[in-house]
Amino acid sequence: MHETRIRVRFDEVDTMGVVHHPRYLVYFEVARTEYFRDLGMVYRDVMAGGTHLAIIEAGARYVRSAKYDDELVVETRCTEVGGASVMLRYAVRRGDETLATGFTRLGAVDLSGRAKRLPGDLRAKFSAVVETDPHDGRASRVQSGA
Amino acid sequence: MHETRIRVRFDEVDTMGVVHHPRYLVYFEVARTEYFRDLGMVYRDVMAGGTHLAIIEAGARYVRSAKYDDELVVETRCTEVGGASVMLRYAVRRGDETLATGFTRLGAVDLSGRAKRLPGDLRAKFSAVVETDPHDGRASRVQSGA
Amino acid sequence: MHETRIRVRFDEVDTMGVVHHPRYLVYFEVARTEYFRDLGMVYRDVMAGGTHLAIIEAGARYVRSAKYDDELVVETRCTEVGGASVMLRYAVRRGDETLATGFTRLGAVDLSGRAKRLPGDLRAKFSAVVETDPHDGRASRVQSGA
Amino acid sequence: MHETRIRVRFDEVDTMGVVHHPRYLVYFEVARTEYFRDLGMVYRDVMAGGTHLAIIEAGARYVRSAKYDDELVVETRCTEVGGASVMLRYAVRRGDETLATGFTRLGAVDLSGRAKRLPGDLRAKFSAVVETDPHDGRASRVQSGA
Repeated sequence: MHETRIRVRFDEVDTMGVVHHPRYLVYFEVARTEYFRDLGMVYRDVMAGGTHLAIIEAGARYVRSAKYDDELVVETRCTEVGGASVMLRYAVRRGDETLATGFTRLGAVDLSGRAKRLPGDLRAKFSAVVETDPHDGRASRVQSGA
Repeated sequence: MHETRIRVRFDEVDTMGVVHHPRYLVYFEVARTEYFRDLGMVYRDVMAGGTHLAIIEAGARYVRSAKYDDELVVETRCTEVGGASVMLRYAVRRGDETLATGFTRLGAVDLSGRAKRLPGDLRAKFSAVVETDPHDGRASRVQSGA
Repeated sequence: MHETRIRVRFDEVDTMGVVHHPRYLVYFEVARTEYFRDLGMVYRDVMAGGTHLAIIEAGARYVRSAKYDDELVVETRCTEVGGASVMLRYAVRRGDETLATGFTRLGAVDLSGRAKRLPGDLRAKFSAVVETDPHDGRASRVQSGA
Repeated sequence: MHETRIRVRFDEVDTMGVVHHPRYLVYFEVARTEYFRDLGMVYRDVMAGGTHLAIIEAGARYVRSAKYDDELVVETRCTEVGGASVMLRYAVRRGDETLATGFTRLGAVDLSGRAKRLPGDLRAKFSAVVETDPHDGRASRVQSGA
């Protein structure tokens, strides 16, 4: 499990005073970039090497709202590794509160967007850290039943 | 079923040349604003009346990518109406191709963010148009099992 | 002078209930895409032909605020054409009110970002429509004095 | 002069592989939030106290492009303090390179958007740090001539 700190920016908050819901997918993206860096994969270099990890499916459940200038922690986990895709799960916390949970299923594609196998070194790195998700039992069932 | 046309803007496309995935949630939002207008609910007026429809859960599956300047059609359907929430489902098409499908579950809240019952007039309008979703059988099962 | 209609989206409005100021630069971009289309230059095709019109300088003055769901008109004019760059000026109106004015100076670059001459056909099209700006005398002076 | 570090996010980069130009105005906003915090003004608290600093005018000159995952430094300076407004100037650097410069003129407004005097404590804090801008002589002339 990896943690990334994010300070909510003014432009991320909507007219209700809370972080606009699509922005959480951006937070997930920022968090996985740092997670990948921590695993020894700089995503900019992965792309330069000819692989993009495109989003196949994404989802989020919103429990409590985040406000401007809040300091959030995004927890990121890898919960499945396949031959061509990987599942990442996220929880956004503010102190002890969980504000949102979510997931992204990422598929390896080449730079023209064609699906391909996950390169061996990436697969090895994800396999070394894959874990089950303690936060989001329901979403796990959804995915395993899909 | 309601259709909204959206032209992909330059700022919505990422470095891979395709619409950045969180942007689809914004397209869903644009589409439901027009859907609501068509149903006789101007969302600006709904908010002025003290009700916000907050996102409780959202998800999307990405099948084909959209490119800069593409003309997209977002189909919107209401597939469930409850006492305090409503489920909307979306399909994003370009001509005959389906690029993505998704959903948002919306919950009525007051302007301080507290959950409340769906006002009767909104509930009546959604009830008059609720339908089953022909596009996204799997997601429907997911939701009905939740 | 060209006019583009834009409906303010929910995600474009900040916590003060008004359109967030950087968004006007996006409105200018949407407006010039339509202006270019009207002049017979589809910007997607211009890029496919190896030319990008990069922003060299941009500015905006904010007079009145725009709100969610407002229908805006963005007026676009070409006010200078040079060998390698072009100046566009914008006014954002809501009915009779001018909400903001602004400009972007665009420079031709190749797809690796290197500055180049404006292709002859683009230069001809801009030259055919270049005009002085009646709205923004001060900014014109600023630019001519630069 | 104050420095804020910003890591370029994937969603901030356009299809040309460079940071999309309106995003610099957001970087300026992130930078001034941290600058204000450093001066003892938490902007969230300033708003809670009934004052918003709205953008009256903004501009940027783009010299070199920033890329995904770059680490940028935004320098922020206060270069003018008036009775109702304040001028901030910015320079975005990557190592020794200056990528862009810009400014925002901010005007005090109440929470309904009506212009008002800058509260005395804010004015005192800005006055204590006001300086001339060494980076952007031309823009200074523009402003002083306005």
